[in-house]
Amino acid sequence: MFWILFIVFLAACMGAGATGAAFKPGAWYQSLDKPSWTPPDWAFPVVWTTLYIFMAVAGARASLLPDNSLAMAFWALQIALNCLWTPVFFGLHRIREGMLVLSCLWIAVAATMIALFQIDTIAGLLFVPYLIWVTTAGALNLSVWQRNPQETRNPQTPS
Amino acid sequence: MFWILFIVFLAACMGAGATGAAFKPGAWYQSLDKPSWTPPDWAFPVVWTTLYIFMAVAGARASLLPDNSLAMAFWALQIALNCLWTPVFFGLHRIREGMLVLSCLWIAVAATMIALFQIDTIAGLLFVPYLIWVTTAGALNLSVWQRNPQETRNPQTPS
Repeated sequence: MFWILFIVFLAACMGAGATGAAFKPGAWYQSLDKPSWTPPDWAFPVVWTTLYIFMAVAGARASLLPDNSLAMAFWALQIALNCLWTPVFFGLHRIREGMLVLSCLWIAVAATMIALFQIDTIAGLLFVPYLIWVTTAGALNLSVWQRNPQETRNPQTPS
Repeated sequence: MFWILFIVFLAACMGAGATGAAFKPGAWYQSLDKPSWTPPDWAFPVVWTTLYIFMAVAGARASLLPDNSLAMAFWALQIALNCLWTPVFFGLHRIREGMLVLSCLWIAVAATMIALFQIDTIAGLLFVPYLIWVTTAGALNLSVWQRNPQETRNPQTPS
């Protein structure tokens, strides 16, 4: 049963991962002024794949435990917001709205982690790298916002 | 506790709903050759809002029950795929890939409904209109695909 659940939760993560394949960074992202500590492009798919596996293991473990209601509700919320960020940032080139989505995602990931820790320490620990990465992504989104004021004053939404 | 869970599941649905606000049908959708039974534009937000409330009630009810693992895993999968469809179809104008996502969503919604019925009849019933609507949306996507061959031979992806 664990492995069936793992595959279903991983499929949900792959739905989020598909947004990254559908909306690639491209020339617009390359042209942005980014801070020196921006992770290299190759790091993003590597890190996300690892995090998706961790998230799916945590989800499958928690789903089998009693009193998992809050953990399951927040797990669903974080994957929905995870799916939303890439289309908003890379699809619409909306840095400011991307920051809003990422802030909501950060809260959802933190809430999921706390709820997981209350029922399963391993599942909670599996969300720690995710929260660190979303914090990094949030700092990067914020820095890009500050460094590219022309983009948020007059966003060039592709249409 | 039910209401907190309802709000968290509803927030996940609103994440999916936000894709509809971010990627509007616009001139491209208007220009497509659509079947006569296409629902009017105003119906989509009305139906989706109703379905989101039903989905959130079903999620909150199921999350409080024992043996909810499959229902919770599939609930998360369907909301992730729900978030994915709009950016692919209305954002990228990819009718064929939209059909693929919608097919996966249909399977996920059906699986969620079956898993819900096994633990809570009311929660299962709340997913019936959703499955009917996704079936309708799938038939519309398929019809649009067949009626607009130029769009799938040479999709004009905005970039």
